[in-house]
Amino acid sequence: MRVLGIDPGSRHTGYGVVDGDGDRLLTVACGSVPLPASLPLPARLGRIFTEISRLIQETHPEEMAVEDVFVSRNARSALILGQARGAAIAAGIHGGLRVFEYSALEIKQAVVGYGKADKNQVIHMVRFLLGPPDLSDLHAADALAVAVCHIHARTFSRRFRVADRP
Amino acid sequence: MRVLGIDPGSRHTGYGVVDGDGDRLLTVACGSVPLPASLPLPARLGRIFTEISRLIQETHPEEMAVEDVFVSRNARSALILGQARGAAIAAGIHGGLRVFEYSALEIKQAVVGYGKADKNQVIHMVRFLLGPPDLSDLHAADALAVAVCHIHARTFSRRFRVADRP
Repeated sequence: MRVLGIDPGSRHTGYGVVDGDGDRLLTVACGSVPLPASLPLPARLGRIFTEISRLIQETHPEEMAVEDVFVSRNARSALILGQARGAAIAAGIHGGLRVFEYSALEIKQAVVGYGKADKNQVIHMVRFLLGPPDLSDLHAADALAVAVCHIHARTFSRRFRVADRP
Repeated sequence: MRVLGIDPGSRHTGYGVVDGDGDRLLTVACGSVPLPASLPLPARLGRIFTEISRLIQETHPEEMAVEDVFVSRNARSALILGQARGAAIAAGIHGGLRVFEYSALEIKQAVVGYGKADKNQVIHMVRFLLGPPDLSDLHAADALAVAVCHIHARTFSRRFRVADRP
């Protein structure tokens, strides 16, 4: 299956498209949409929507996975982050994708095997699993991690479903 | 000019389409998109995007106006509200509309003439100015108020521009 992972942010929104079937994983595309602070907010949200819509048309993912942000900062920054997330999810739904959400804990457990892993460990494992040419873009790396998490979750649920059969 | 006003919310997103030229105002459409709590969040955001996109196709507004929410509640509810707002603005941009934001203070000043007006005064003035058949839907009333605010702002800026000419 082909999955689009999204790491939403108001300054950079990362994306990563991954083909995966169990342990075989391949990066189809990854990068991030830069959102200059000089742009008014509606224009930034429009750019997120347009770029993700274009990516969906070009790479044809079947499902979308987005990190379910845990908010510890103030309400104003949560509102701004929420808007970026809303525009990204709207692009996914508009592109006909089913959208799934994962907590940071679930992503770390799926990628590193340890829920309290730090950011460097996640990036290291993403690089090990996917080996993309360039992972200096941390937003892209985060987006790839969400996609990998979703592929793992899907593979496990499929295995369980097969196991459930009489 | 024809303006689409939006009152974004995660349970109900209000909309109001208003034709206006200075003091002449006419309601083209108003209502709200119900977003049952039983639906997963991505499905709710998808419904906001789809319903507003459909409204834009049916009524052809030229510009969109959205309340710039002042957030006093906690970060979690701000994140949820932000997502609804992001999906609504994405629909406006996708529909080719320019999007404008107004604070609650600006809306009250434009509609009631008094920035500290309460909710009932705003609804009363919206009913007086637009006289829609039914304004029991408070989300629709709020959305109409944003649209009226934008039409006022546009009219004033046009008058100033005319006055500026030599």
